[in-house]
Amino acid sequence: MKPELGTCYYPEHWSQDMWQRDAERMIEVGISWVRIGEFAWSRIEPQEGKLEWEWLDKAVQTLGEVGLKIVMGTPSATPPIWMVKKYPDMLAVGKDGHVKQFGSRRHYCFSHFEYRREAVRMATLMGERYGHNTHVAAWQIDNEYGCHNTTLSYSPHAQMGFQDWLAQKYQSPQALNRAWGNVFWSMEVSSFDEIGLPNLTVCEPNPIHELEFFRYTSDQVVAFNLAQVKALRTLTDRPLIHNYMGRILDFDHYKVGDDLDIASWDSYPLGFLEDRSEKDEAFKHTYSTKGDPDFQAFHHDLYRSVGKGRWWVMEQQPGPVNWAPYNPAPAEGMVKLWTLEAIAHGAEVVSYFRWRQAHFAQEQMHSGLLRVDDKAAPALHEAEEVHKILTDLDTNEQQQSDVAIIFDYESAWAWHIQRQGKDFDYFNLIYDFYCGLRKLGQSIDILPPNTENFGDRKLVLIPALFAWNNEIKTAMKNFNGTLLIGPRSGSKTKDFAIPSKLPPEIDYMDITVERVETLRPSSTVGLKNYNGTLMRWFEHITTLNEVVIETTAGAPALIKKGKTYYLAGWPDEMAMQNVLKLLLEGENLSIQKLKGGLRLRESKHHKFWIDYDTCQVKIEPKEKP
Amino acid sequence: MKPELGTCYYPEHWSQDMWQRDAERMIEVGISWVRIGEFAWSRIEPQEGKLEWEWLDKAVQTLGEVGLKIVMGTPSATPPIWMVKKYPDMLAVGKDGHVKQFGSRRHYCFSHFEYRREAVRMATLMGERYGHNTHVAAWQIDNEYGCHNTTLSYSPHAQMGFQDWLAQKYQSPQALNRAWGNVFWSMEVSSFDEIGLPNLTVCEPNPIHELEFFRYTSDQVVAFNLAQVKALRTLTDRPLIHNYMGRILDFDHYKVGDDLDIASWDSYPLGFLEDRSEKDEAFKHTYSTKGDPDFQAFHHDLYRSVGKGRWWVMEQQPGPVNWAPYNPAPAEGMVKLWTLEAIAHGAEVVSYFRWRQAHFAQEQMHSGLLRVDDKAAPALHEAEEVHKILTDLDTNEQQQSDVAIIFDYESAWAWHIQRQGKDFDYFNLIYDFYCGLRKLGQSIDILPPNTENFGDRKLVLIPALFAWNNEIKTAMKNFNGTLLIGPRSGSKTKDFAIPSKLPPEIDYMDITVERVETLRPSSTVGLKNYNGTLMRWFEHITTLNEVVIETTAGAPALIKKGKTYYLAGWPDEMAMQNVLKLLLEGENLSIQKLKGGLRLRESKHHKFWIDYDTCQVKIEPKEKP
Amino acid sequence: MKPELGTCYYPEHWSQDMWQRDAERMIEVGISWVRIGEFAWSRIEPQEGKLEWEWLDKAVQTLGEVGLKIVMGTPSATPPIWMVKKYPDMLAVGKDGHVKQFGSRRHYCFSHFEYRREAVRMATLMGERYGHNTHVAAWQIDNEYGCHNTTLSYSPHAQMGFQDWLAQKYQSPQALNRAWGNVFWSMEVSSFDEIGLPNLTVCEPNPIHELEFFRYTSDQVVAFNLAQVKALRTLTDRPLIHNYMGRILDFDHYKVGDDLDIASWDSYPLGFLEDRSEKDEAFKHTYSTKGDPDFQAFHHDLYRSVGKGRWWVMEQQPGPVNWAPYNPAPAEGMVKLWTLEAIAHGAEVVSYFRWRQAHFAQEQMHSGLLRVDDKAAPALHEAEEVHKILTDLDTNEQQQSDVAIIFDYESAWAWHIQRQGKDFDYFNLIYDFYCGLRKLGQSIDILPPNTENFGDRKLVLIPALFAWNNEIKTAMKNFNGTLLIGPRSGSKTKDFAIPSKLPPEIDYMDITVERVETLRPSSTVGLKNYNGTLMRWFEHITTLNEVVIETTAGAPALIKKGKTYYLAGWPDEMAMQNVLKLLLEGENLSIQKLKGGLRLRESKHHKFWIDYDTCQVKIEPKEKP
Repeated sequence: MKPELGTCYYPEHWSQDMWQRDAERMIEVGISWVRIGEFAWSRIEPQEGKLEWEWLDKAVQTLGEVGLKIVMGTPSATPPIWMVKKYPDMLAVGKDGHVKQFGSRRHYCFSHFEYRREAVRMATLMGERYGHNTHVAAWQIDNEYGCHNTTLSYSPHAQMGFQDWLAQKYQSPQALNRAWGNVFWSMEVSSFDEIGLPNLTVCEPNPIHELEFFRYTSDQVVAFNLAQVKALRTLTDRPLIHNYMGRILDFDHYKVGDDLDIASWDSYPLGFLEDRSEKDEAFKHTYSTKGDPDFQAFHHDLYRSVGKGRWWVMEQQPGPVNWAPYNPAPAEGMVKLWTLEAIAHGAEVVSYFRWRQAHFAQEQMHSGLLRVDDKAAPALHEAEEVHKILTDLDTNEQQQSDVAIIFDYESAWAWHIQRQGKDFDYFNLIYDFYCGLRKLGQSIDILPPNTENFGDRKLVLIPALFAWNNEIKTAMKNFNGTLLIGPRSGSKTKDFAIPSKLPPEIDYMDITVERVETLRPSSTVGLKNYNGTLMRWFEHITTLNEVVIETTAGAPALIKKGKTYYLAGWPDEMAMQNVLKLLLEGENLSIQKLKGGLRLRESKHHKFWIDYDTCQVKIEPKEKP
Repeated sequence: MKPELGTCYYPEHWSQDMWQRDAERMIEVGISWVRIGEFAWSRIEPQEGKLEWEWLDKAVQTLGEVGLKIVMGTPSATPPIWMVKKYPDMLAVGKDGHVKQFGSRRHYCFSHFEYRREAVRMATLMGERYGHNTHVAAWQIDNEYGCHNTTLSYSPHAQMGFQDWLAQKYQSPQALNRAWGNVFWSMEVSSFDEIGLPNLTVCEPNPIHELEFFRYTSDQVVAFNLAQVKALRTLTDRPLIHNYMGRILDFDHYKVGDDLDIASWDSYPLGFLEDRSEKDEAFKHTYSTKGDPDFQAFHHDLYRSVGKGRWWVMEQQPGPVNWAPYNPAPAEGMVKLWTLEAIAHGAEVVSYFRWRQAHFAQEQMHSGLLRVDDKAAPALHEAEEVHKILTDLDTNEQQQSDVAIIFDYESAWAWHIQRQGKDFDYFNLIYDFYCGLRKLGQSIDILPPNTENFGDRKLVLIPALFAWNNEIKTAMKNFNGTLLIGPRSGSKTKDFAIPSKLPPEIDYMDITVERVETLRPSSTVGLKNYNGTLMRWFEHITTLNEVVIETTAGAPALIKKGKTYYLAGWPDEMAMQNVLKLLLEGENLSIQKLKGGLRLRESKHHKFWIDYDTCQVKIEPKEKP
Repeated sequence: MKPELGTCYYPEHWSQDMWQRDAERMIEVGISWVRIGEFAWSRIEPQEGKLEWEWLDKAVQTLGEVGLKIVMGTPSATPPIWMVKKYPDMLAVGKDGHVKQFGSRRHYCFSHFEYRREAVRMATLMGERYGHNTHVAAWQIDNEYGCHNTTLSYSPHAQMGFQDWLAQKYQSPQALNRAWGNVFWSMEVSSFDEIGLPNLTVCEPNPIHELEFFRYTSDQVVAFNLAQVKALRTLTDRPLIHNYMGRILDFDHYKVGDDLDIASWDSYPLGFLEDRSEKDEAFKHTYSTKGDPDFQAFHHDLYRSVGKGRWWVMEQQPGPVNWAPYNPAPAEGMVKLWTLEAIAHGAEVVSYFRWRQAHFAQEQMHSGLLRVDDKAAPALHEAEEVHKILTDLDTNEQQQSDVAIIFDYESAWAWHIQRQGKDFDYFNLIYDFYCGLRKLGQSIDILPPNTENFGDRKLVLIPALFAWNNEIKTAMKNFNGTLLIGPRSGSKTKDFAIPSKLPPEIDYMDITVERVETLRPSSTVGLKNYNGTLMRWFEHITTLNEVVIETTAGAPALIKKGKTYYLAGWPDEMAMQNVLKLLLEGENLSIQKLKGGLRLRESKHHKFWIDYDTCQVKIEPKEKP
């Protein structure tokens, strides 16, 4: 399948006499896909039950007839005001107890069943009307679950739902008390309706209380999505998609992805650098008009996994955005680079947000392919250039990478709940490993935590997986390659308790994490004979296995048994390079030391050299082996 | 008219046998005016309808008989507890949804009509009693509108009032939906009572929604003030005054000023430096006992405009205050300097807050002219010195300045709502232009945004005016001097949308702002052949007009057509000097490069050299031309 | 009495078959005391009125029979959920108005009388059962009053209680209005039920309003504690104890201590360094695995005073904790050092928290003497070493120190309410004096503000005592040693007003604080002929007394009359050393200049050299005098 380009279009923003010309220009530029509809509820159903399809029928027809393939969005991210008036308790509630009011978007609580039913009703109506429309070639359900911190809602509906969910899981309050250790501060309950939400407590609630609320809430996102999926499946055979975001961790994307056909994400490299990166100021300065050279790739690899190989960029930043602390313009060539990089990682479609900048409302300062005055913005020309390159690219098949890393949403929740050191952040830890591998020229697969088989990969990393599961234990047992485990992996039971024999509970190794300490930034643990240090997190370990690297004080830092390694702390950049080289060399994997912003991504038939410093992409055919 | 001195006095704080001596001492020191009454509601009306005038009658008489002119304050800033018990819903509500409780001051919501009526009732009672009293020579209405962040209130009364106000303005929900672009995220309403307040939303509300709430709220301040004005006009012919504050931007002071006779403000140079200035720490250190050399002058010029030429300092800092993060003592001579500087800018009266430091309650650590032990504080002697100087000063007429700058409250709201870059602050931008002019020795007029005629001025600056209006367009067309426009001027319609032909919409120029970017502090735009850079905000412009200054990359930075200039970004201090010199020299205006804290203010017959470094003021008669 | 060791044990966390072995191991290690029960309400009374004593009986028996002395805790810090369901309004309310929910601990409001009665009921039931049990040798009431910011509660019950308390104190609203100066902003009330709580006001409330609320709340803590004390006194003759915390200032510990027999505190040197210290980062880095060398000693001395000579460490940190921003492991030897240091200061018992690390719930990452896997953690061995040293120590008598410093909770509240400069913190000021004395080798007594007699001490420091009381005035008058007063001492009346004759109101000196200024960190006041500066706070003083130290500008900095000194500002470290040396030398007190982390504590018969740099303690017998 050849990769294609798309764009996001809002016919409801523009007068109908502009639609035809817009559609034609899209085709001229080389765009094949157009997403519509995902915020249009108030136009489809301006009052309850009063449906107005004509405009949307016409939009579909106009766009489709020039040859565009339509992604139809269900508009459940923006319930209109009449819905809120009908169900005032559908509004989400923040951790601070404040009800989130109507006036922007994503104001619904995932636990509110009546709203879920309304969303299904709308999806059904749309499916009935467009499920077999020849122009509608895919569906997007809702928009950006979790954006604006809207996954966790502390509403009365969430509390009732949580209590039911716990009742089904634990069956008896006594079982829950035991599993949670509620005896600790006399927190024992005698019925499920005594369980509150884990917010507004005097000091921190029981960590398992918080973790279960994350699990419950994530399940509601899955259920909310699945309800629309089920409605649409009977009405259409087109693929179903959701557009995820960057560094949103508060629901299990793999589980949502299991019910969909294609994963996609919304990639805003400059906005994410300013708004969601913890890199230092010098780094942000260097890449302020280019983006972090690894952030996009990480999410491409992640969502390739969430989509089980099928994934898109649904929204690609085309120019300055409006929502980051600073909103510079991308350097020349970067829109093209970002697009090609996505394709290097296997994107089937890269779709630009948005066709034309709207002059009104919240995102009026967010650019598009066209300017407010209908003229081409710089990105339009870069999209055209990409289109030409794609025309020449004969294929874009992906291959399994030799190296993989486990990424687990539950672990992100667990270590958010129990950081132990204030700078222990699961995403950052995994990302440090990912970036370390990339600086050594690796292409990487990201795997879910319940992977049963690592295949014929050479190296799999499992840092900070908070609790083991049977699938991964099987995968580890059957794996012939090199494994890197730790720090903090296997340090909890599923009930968020410390294993009674102490972590890491790897049955074929002899390792005991006797004590854990978290370190202030000024305190690090030096390594004997290796440059670099361990930082933030350090485990005091006793072991009968081989100690490959010792701390300067003589404590185990990297331990080995067979081809399984265990790492006792969080390596800084230099220690990371040393540890990863040691592992890669052990597997005779080819290492390319990449400097600055240069990165390499190998697909089945190509090497993509992506240079964030020069803003250039070089695509090399691989020699046939 | 010769400028005079005043003080703020609270007879209710002191036993009656102290009043006579206090009054006599005021006269001895050279004080002519005394403000009383503005917080005394609980003494005038201790219970509803139970009026106690005797003490106030006696205070008026005692003060007046020694020759003092009284400013009588209406006490509406401090409704007593019985009022709050009567109208529990009169309390203001914060943006976080919390009701602001009784226990300090300014706890009322401007949208609460019953309270407004009560304030009018009290003003009427006071007017009836003292409107023709020979000793009462002026009135102050309320006290410091907007202080303590009390303009915007998110109360149910505000919501109802806002809905009515919108209904009157837009006439139909459809018209509002169209004007606001509510289709954007399905935010369309079908009746005005569906419109909520723009707080507690999931993410940012529609910017026009916020802007209209600012406009509505500002109108309530105007209406609240006007209601008391109307009541007093029928009862007195004395001038009506309000005392504004420093850097309070959340209501339109020009509109409040339109209903009053004299503007005044409360000038606390040291408190404002520590509490409301964004200057850097080195600057704050240098001026910690002197104040920012431009901050007072800016507000003097602003309120001279708000008062249409008639203005006072109603409260002048006399020593350490109690409310800033650090509260040092003024350097010797500074109280005198501040007073003379106000006079240089045309103050009719400078009134010290307060006569004697009260030993109790919230402001017990706030100094006065007298200490708690009734002895003279250092400021008393400086006031006496000023009095002697004023005796020798034959006149204090003001003249129109050659240079003016437009200052617009709506623009402050607009850019607060939509910063686009986190350090884009309208006040700071205008203030940077103001300070830049002052460092070149200019005297400056500040003009409202709807100025119809710039007169025979030589140079008018219009930075960041968010939307054009007909008056200023007329003024621009008829102006013979030099205009500097931009950055960001004319970049929105009144409905907070981007003009469809793109900004800046100056019909006689050929300029298009194609793209805007905001820059992190480490990223700046260099200028070709000029020292200095543009920072924070940069506009990509295409133009057919003359490019006077280019960026190092060759983009237009300063553009000229005739005598109108357009500036594409926010100049740093050096670029500001270069741009302003270029403009001033073009008009053959005399430039004095002033170093450090030295400033110059020219009135009709004098040059005031005000030196914040040496704490000295030199008054030079101007040669007759 | 020989000092002994103890530990905190939670039989409810472990299966009953582990208890016997645990008890025996405690004895083997040298532990004499074991605290139990303080969080076990839900196990003692799982439903209202359903009491389950068997397990606790057995625990007492098992522990007692091996020879352990039991401290029985009343569980009122953790009311179970059924209690909260019964009294939903018992929950504390934060300053932000949010109700603090069940789910952790300390969720009760001290003003809720029904809950107080329930706590007494439980204490009574426990007293009836174990008051005369031979194994129960002491009682702990509740746990860590004030922890997690739970002293001040802004609940409806607090409001009613506060109004009653004010009514009893002032008798008439008019008296209150006068005392408070409520006329200031028309805050006058006409009945006590018009008085609100001092939170959520527009700007700061009247400082006396806040101070009275602190006083009221502190009284509720005292009353809550006393209610349980009274219940237990009739049922047991064992000593009653409470365990206080480090740097918790929001209730009067002396007054709680007056009703108890022994004071104790919970000493977490590493956690407190990271979480509650304002020392700079370099200092925190140096002592991150050792703790601040003075913080423990300060609290030892403070609680020796609160306990009128009898005090314990009830909880001693044994390894990493879970609650600080960073949680490193203690350096080798530090657990031993901390224990011996406590004993040097007179601790009767040092009790480690906790016997075995629990693998579940909130504190699962908090270490114990035993690890989760039941093996010895490093601290266990250090405890054993201490035990051997104690066996050899023949006695541990304390003696009165030559030097004392007054520490006053009301002053902490007053200067929290009215900092005047944002870095004016009462604890830090007192602590600076304390640390200064320690660096000169002094042993120090901490005295309450109402001390009537300073005894035959040589030097007493009274910095920043906000208001005089008769007792201390008597003590000052009768004192033969050297007194150091100021800065800010005596600067208020008990009603939080400035004395009408101006501070400091020392009748036998001639000093007037004419003006006060607070200084930004970059501004300091130099001293003539002395190294060091005054910072943060500076008083302009006129005096007829001897000026011992002048500022470089010639103003009085240290003033002397007889043996009383008055200090005009907050000395930096060097100025502090100079001032203190001058005072100590004046009394011919021996000075030992101690470097780095070395400290000296003298008891009656020993000198303890405690070295936080080398982690060593040296105990020297003193020569008999």
